[in-house]
Amino acid sequence: MKQIDINSDMGEGFGIYRVGDDEAMLDIATTANLACGYHAGDPSIMTAMCRLAKTKGVAIGAHPGYPDLLGFGRRNMPFTKAETMEMIAYQIGACDAIAKSVGYRMTHVKTHGAVGHVIANDPEMAEAFVQTVRRINPELRISVMSCTLLEDAVTAAGSPILRELYADRAYLDDGKLMPRSREGSVIHDAEEGARRAVAMLEAGGIITESGKVLPVAADSVCIHGDTPGALAMARAVRARIIEAGWTVRPYTAA
Amino acid sequence: MKQIDINSDMGEGFGIYRVGDDEAMLDIATTANLACGYHAGDPSIMTAMCRLAKTKGVAIGAHPGYPDLLGFGRRNMPFTKAETMEMIAYQIGACDAIAKSVGYRMTHVKTHGAVGHVIANDPEMAEAFVQTVRRINPELRISVMSCTLLEDAVTAAGSPILRELYADRAYLDDGKLMPRSREGSVIHDAEEGARRAVAMLEAGGIITESGKVLPVAADSVCIHGDTPGALAMARAVRARIIEAGWTVRPYTAA
Amino acid sequence: MKQIDINSDMGEGFGIYRVGDDEAMLDIATTANLACGYHAGDPSIMTAMCRLAKTKGVAIGAHPGYPDLLGFGRRNMPFTKAETMEMIAYQIGACDAIAKSVGYRMTHVKTHGAVGHVIANDPEMAEAFVQTVRRINPELRISVMSCTLLEDAVTAAGSPILRELYADRAYLDDGKLMPRSREGSVIHDAEEGARRAVAMLEAGGIITESGKVLPVAADSVCIHGDTPGALAMARAVRARIIEAGWTVRPYTAA
Amino acid sequence: MKQIDINSDMGEGFGIYRVGDDEAMLDIATTANLACGYHAGDPSIMTAMCRLAKTKGVAIGAHPGYPDLLGFGRRNMPFTKAETMEMIAYQIGACDAIAKSVGYRMTHVKTHGAVGHVIANDPEMAEAFVQTVRRINPELRISVMSCTLLEDAVTAAGSPILRELYADRAYLDDGKLMPRSREGSVIHDAEEGARRAVAMLEAGGIITESGKVLPVAADSVCIHGDTPGALAMARAVRARIIEAGWTVRPYTAA
Repeated sequence: MKQIDINSDMGEGFGIYRVGDDEAMLDIATTANLACGYHAGDPSIMTAMCRLAKTKGVAIGAHPGYPDLLGFGRRNMPFTKAETMEMIAYQIGACDAIAKSVGYRMTHVKTHGAVGHVIANDPEMAEAFVQTVRRINPELRISVMSCTLLEDAVTAAGSPILRELYADRAYLDDGKLMPRSREGSVIHDAEEGARRAVAMLEAGGIITESGKVLPVAADSVCIHGDTPGALAMARAVRARIIEAGWTVRPYTAA
Repeated sequence: MKQIDINSDMGEGFGIYRVGDDEAMLDIATTANLACGYHAGDPSIMTAMCRLAKTKGVAIGAHPGYPDLLGFGRRNMPFTKAETMEMIAYQIGACDAIAKSVGYRMTHVKTHGAVGHVIANDPEMAEAFVQTVRRINPELRISVMSCTLLEDAVTAAGSPILRELYADRAYLDDGKLMPRSREGSVIHDAEEGARRAVAMLEAGGIITESGKVLPVAADSVCIHGDTPGALAMARAVRARIIEAGWTVRPYTAA
Repeated sequence: MKQIDINSDMGEGFGIYRVGDDEAMLDIATTANLACGYHAGDPSIMTAMCRLAKTKGVAIGAHPGYPDLLGFGRRNMPFTKAETMEMIAYQIGACDAIAKSVGYRMTHVKTHGAVGHVIANDPEMAEAFVQTVRRINPELRISVMSCTLLEDAVTAAGSPILRELYADRAYLDDGKLMPRSREGSVIHDAEEGARRAVAMLEAGGIITESGKVLPVAADSVCIHGDTPGALAMARAVRARIIEAGWTVRPYTAA
Repeated sequence: MKQIDINSDMGEGFGIYRVGDDEAMLDIATTANLACGYHAGDPSIMTAMCRLAKTKGVAIGAHPGYPDLLGFGRRNMPFTKAETMEMIAYQIGACDAIAKSVGYRMTHVKTHGAVGHVIANDPEMAEAFVQTVRRINPELRISVMSCTLLEDAVTAAGSPILRELYADRAYLDDGKLMPRSREGSVIHDAEEGARRAVAMLEAGGIITESGKVLPVAADSVCIHGDTPGALAMARAVRARIIEAGWTVRPYTAA
């Protein structure tokens, strides 16, 4: 049963502004992480994305971030744990109701940018996040990068999980992403990214910088939509995965 | 079975700003309409209000408005029907998830200010609003003023309804609120407001400017919290209603 | 002395978002109208634009709009005359200080979108706007479309004026722009737009739909930067004007 | 010539929200630091404050903060030095134009909250801030707390300065404010605050926790307007200073 999901962040425009080509990406990815109005996104974009995703059978989830449209949610902001959870609950609910308003359902949550980094790596934030999501809807899957404290927290709570691999990022030997400051941390060549994605799926785990394989039960391959060449790599990743005999389908079909 | 609910708008601050005395009002009203971050309110205030309301057994609902913190949602904004519904869905969902995050449930929706006026009086907006709420959660009650197109739309759809009387406003003979521009439209005296509330409950309907009674099955008396003397009138309304033999309890206890 | 200015709206991004190719446009236009943070623009973009414009000898002015990032300032908003002027003063000052902070000077004001439409056509708004600009800095030129009430108000006040022609819009016989709803109102072909611009400059006035010439002392040709094909038309307009023997230079060099 | 200025932050509301009693404070203080729309304040409030200050002969200055209405500018935000200066320039200009729009002039700048703390204590931020203000208008006075790096930077640049004493805060022996976390750091009793203000003026310097006097050429006493009892202390400070034989007048009258 070689089956895999492909997820991408979408709906990251605001008003007349757009980031990436969401319509094209909806034909490549099987799961969309939707910006919820804080770092990007607005109710009209969210609604349009939910409607399109429903039509195309793409799974959707909330992609909450810091209230930082100016910095696209990439800037650290010193909110307390309580404030952070309140903002995340707000965004998850907003996304949920918008999905329902077009007759669809959101089925996962993936944090964005700086708040995502905090939640992945701070044990109290990770735990609070998992509990917040559970209280809102215990059936929501939580997206995690492997080898993070968030993965541990989701597993410990017994919550549904969505484990991701990154096609376009190098991994350290401990399974964490190589910092962007290091050369070779980001893969720009579409075919190389695609080869890495297939290699990791076939190996059944993360391939680190030294060539080690860390066994990981990946549910989804994450592809980016907001960089030059993003669509080319996304198409290559999907094509090579299919050529390797995998069925690409939303995690909701699992 | 003389039972009645008392509702009031609450949580209308933002950041360090506050409007009205929410804590005091939670001991008077049995239902709170919570600002959802567009015309007022923020996730921390919303969370604190949900937690308090749960403790005190006060029913809560979303109180969505236009995205207009500067104008407190009282300014007309030319959004299309679709845009308006998208923004309302967003806010309803945000309120719902915040309530769930503290182990509580929101059970109704009451629109705020300028968007509330549009939805009460424009048949297409009223119909779209009712359908939007139903798609999000068909069990949510919709607050209405009597003799509005929104009341008709809710009734036609067979949705749960929450019919309100205003203690501090005069009514025209057609059952609509007297415009604020007319003298006598707003009642400032606490005891007079309380007497009116009791008189309408006892009469089983709206008492209009000419003294006519329009039969209305009122579910709730609306009291304001953001004006000088608001608390005094709120306390008087509650006290006189109880003295008249009515049980004041949340509509959710009905 | 065949001399003319070419102006274009610039700096209309926000955070990571961008509209149009400002760097390319700064080599075509001789005057930049800079968004001031309300409908678009932020302090970083404004600063970068001022710095570039200074380097390239491009004149700059404030391009204030409604506080409506979501609607790009194109949505009507019911602000009073006083509120509108307060918001415009705020934005003009912000632009002025940012220009000074990089050792440059802003020298004109051009209103944007919906507020621009109101100010061009409402005599009280036009008069208030002219007086507001004069109180801030009586040397600031005010951009006007010909045959508007704003043109009358600027002339009546004796304020410095910047009269514009539009290369890509058709004109009615009374000198106003043909509404966008009419076929042929917007010219999409780059060479046609360029030909029209040259023809109007050579004719010394606006050429209307019936072929009449309304004499207008044009100071600047306005080109757009935010539409597909915008750069191509902008380049064509500049090239054909120069070929026709005109010197293209900022109005500040007049 | 015993003359002194009294300054207070004002105009820190937003939309319908208000903080403190600005009208009352304008009769006590001789200098107003006006919020500029980022951490608080909006163009209408700014305009109203400028108009009132002009009428009452109160000097005004910009009081720029972080773009953080939700946190009232008290939250640290990781903006770069360049971004910080761009935002400050923006706000100074906005305040300047609003003042001019009512026929008045702003004459100083005082930073607010978290950004004020950064600029007071980081040498590169302090230097950049002084240069930014100088480029906008070299005649603007810069408010400083004594014994800060900002004081050094203003002095080194030869810029006009406005040295403040705090009536309601205790000082460490090095002249810095005692951290709020320490008991006794904030003086709540109106008469005690007033006595301290007079004592420091008469001593010609800061009186520290150990009773030492650090000679400081104070230009202004800062009083707060946003705390309970603020008006009472402000009135006491003014009254006791006058009783001690000092003339209270705006620094602009110096």
